[in-house]
Amino acid sequence: MHPHVAQLLEFLRFPSISTDSNHDKSVADCANWLGEKLRRIGLDTTVHPTAGHPIVVAKNAHRAGRSTVLIYGHYDVQPVDPLELWTTPPFEPRIENDIVFARGATDNKGQILAHILGVEETIKRAGDLPVNLTFLIEGEEEVGSQNLEPFLAAHRDELRCDIIAVSDTGMVARGVPTFTYGLRGIAAMELKITGPSTDLHSGIFGGAIANPALMLARLLTTLHDADGRVTVAGFYDNVQPLADWERAAWSKLPLGDGEILQLTGAPAVFGETGYTSTERTWARPTAELNGIGGGYQGQGTKTVLPKEAFAKLTFRLVPDQKPADVLKKVGAHLRANCPPSVRLEIAEGHSGEPYVTDPNSAAGLAARRALQKTFGSEPALIREGGSIPIVQTFRHLLGADTLLLGLALPDCRAHAPNENFPLENFHAGIGLNEALLGELAGLK
Amino acid sequence: MHPHVAQLLEFLRFPSISTDSNHDKSVADCANWLGEKLRRIGLDTTVHPTAGHPIVVAKNAHRAGRSTVLIYGHYDVQPVDPLELWTTPPFEPRIENDIVFARGATDNKGQILAHILGVEETIKRAGDLPVNLTFLIEGEEEVGSQNLEPFLAAHRDELRCDIIAVSDTGMVARGVPTFTYGLRGIAAMELKITGPSTDLHSGIFGGAIANPALMLARLLTTLHDADGRVTVAGFYDNVQPLADWERAAWSKLPLGDGEILQLTGAPAVFGETGYTSTERTWARPTAELNGIGGGYQGQGTKTVLPKEAFAKLTFRLVPDQKPADVLKKVGAHLRANCPPSVRLEIAEGHSGEPYVTDPNSAAGLAARRALQKTFGSEPALIREGGSIPIVQTFRHLLGADTLLLGLALPDCRAHAPNENFPLENFHAGIGLNEALLGELAGLK
Repeated sequence: MHPHVAQLLEFLRFPSISTDSNHDKSVADCANWLGEKLRRIGLDTTVHPTAGHPIVVAKNAHRAGRSTVLIYGHYDVQPVDPLELWTTPPFEPRIENDIVFARGATDNKGQILAHILGVEETIKRAGDLPVNLTFLIEGEEEVGSQNLEPFLAAHRDELRCDIIAVSDTGMVARGVPTFTYGLRGIAAMELKITGPSTDLHSGIFGGAIANPALMLARLLTTLHDADGRVTVAGFYDNVQPLADWERAAWSKLPLGDGEILQLTGAPAVFGETGYTSTERTWARPTAELNGIGGGYQGQGTKTVLPKEAFAKLTFRLVPDQKPADVLKKVGAHLRANCPPSVRLEIAEGHSGEPYVTDPNSAAGLAARRALQKTFGSEPALIREGGSIPIVQTFRHLLGADTLLLGLALPDCRAHAPNENFPLENFHAGIGLNEALLGELAGLK
Repeated sequence: MHPHVAQLLEFLRFPSISTDSNHDKSVADCANWLGEKLRRIGLDTTVHPTAGHPIVVAKNAHRAGRSTVLIYGHYDVQPVDPLELWTTPPFEPRIENDIVFARGATDNKGQILAHILGVEETIKRAGDLPVNLTFLIEGEEEVGSQNLEPFLAAHRDELRCDIIAVSDTGMVARGVPTFTYGLRGIAAMELKITGPSTDLHSGIFGGAIANPALMLARLLTTLHDADGRVTVAGFYDNVQPLADWERAAWSKLPLGDGEILQLTGAPAVFGETGYTSTERTWARPTAELNGIGGGYQGQGTKTVLPKEAFAKLTFRLVPDQKPADVLKKVGAHLRANCPPSVRLEIAEGHSGEPYVTDPNSAAGLAARRALQKTFGSEPALIREGGSIPIVQTFRHLLGADTLLLGLALPDCRAHAPNENFPLENFHAGIGLNEALLGELAGLK
């Protein structure tokens, strides 16, 4: 096994699930492993404790007159359930047909480790990098990066940079280098509908007491029209329309409805009228139900009228929507539509702003050249439907834009069972790091 | 501790949950304990194996010229979840203020054991009973009694009787003897909505693929109008209207909206317009959501678009609705309303017909006299919202009507955490058995 691959498997074995406090120890172990790795390649490395999970910072010796590049990534991963749908255990990486299967393989351990190994190779060969480099690798990306923002504010001088690079996005297809110039934002909310003080016998009380699970279903149904357009008043107020060049460029990508149906296995595409599927996912906001539960969950039948039911919602946002504004409007909508026969509780969760940058800026052009050099073809220019809220925070706090040079394939199953990353992309990422730092060195 | 109470606690310690195959051994142990008890009091007892859980039959020596009475009950219980809402463990019975708390205390172990102990007392005192008696006690009442019907058909001669008595219903209030002359039927159905072949990243695909959990919510919402009236075409076709004397009698019972709100803790009553709460629960059918689930169920946020979601439904039926007809109509409604962007799977569950008998028949009057004798006041005449589907099967297969002489109080929490049964009612049940067999002896 190539030593780069062996290190990837080692990294993937940590169950660094940031949302679940039962895994706090594994998250910390993973941060320390990363710190050790960065120290061994000669970087000045600190594993910073935070109120949550540690933040790892590593730098070469910075010298005046060079470009300063910050590479951001994360070592935390999503939960693994439903566990029974994994072919092999999520933290026992398996390689099949040169693809590695494990939670975090794509998102984000494979991609950030490729940058680290790229830096290691360049230092081995050239003794130093052509730029001042800072790695910033956190453990709370999957739970909203809540401790990263105060950390950035407190370490603003130490983290000062000209440009930021992140590989945590996707390629439109295998072998198609992809430059992502926009991301959706996110805002999370959890609802609870409560009614009776205990589960009731559905024979004795059914018909006379409102069913919280049914009332929740009714309330959720008010969020969209029949075609999936969000019906919350003012939801689309600040949405910027798509530019003509974007619609034209995207229509040429190998990402039509056929590809989406093949990728997802869904029986049909579905969404807001007047937009293609790529336009719906990249440039239009959503109200999505990530989880719902209430009443009897076991085998067979239990004839209860449940005391409560919950729903976990996230809203994907596009420029210029603001998370706080959206959550406020949705909250008002839910309160106005909640039947008086039940009670509604709303808890707001993490959020992050949407992002867009100019793909024709000097740094944007440098990144596109690095992609072209690595993959041998012109990069696709896209936005993405996912969220990396910290990108907008970087702009606010460090004053630098972010280049998104993702290596994930559309069928990488990020956040889902059997997440995977092709070794081809892993090795390409190592090469991309060298090309990128070379191009960015030329900016100054 | 009174020896009767000690025996009740012993009976309650078996976790005889019939719906969960992990408890099969406990269900069998409970049946054998019951068999031993019935043998010890001198009854000819057999614990019959079935394709499911055992059926216990016990008889005194039957003699020509006497009334033959069959007393039916069940030793299986409902599941216990949510376990964390129990003050003490559900199978470690606790007595507080002369009330016993345990799963099955009311439904049905406390009530059937009272009959058994009543028979034991009478035999001890008089040497025999005034009637030919058969106990028929099953272990699948909470899962639809699916093996009882073939058992009745196969043992029809052995189980021949003039009248059946069951204590598995409620009293309208403490100290108010209650004769139940009607029950709702039931029909169960489980739905699954599926979409993509795996959970998807809600950022990458959200907006372009229908969300199965949201589509399930939308589909469930089509089952009722805003007031809770079922909107399935033909659902009310065979519903018999309430008689004037019933509405008049029920309006005088101490069971108004105030009592229902106090019992349930719900913020408001809710239901079909034009009916009181007792009318809604006793004489009007329902479509109830017993459980719903899909997507992320854990702590925090997981940004998935879930691959599937399920709903467990039961329909409470009133004369003359037929379960198969209702399930067919509901199935057609759901298929017609399911969006084409997802797939719908329907699994029909157990069912039982609604029941009504004449409270002024000779046996009905005998039962009412026994209740009056035991409690010292005129019994209330009611229907009940719950279902004992086997009552209708008794009528079909044994040709006998059933007297429902329940001892459960409205706050017994049957099917819910902290189920309980007052010892006062337990002891009354022992006395009621003697009075009832005496009255029924007089019918022949």
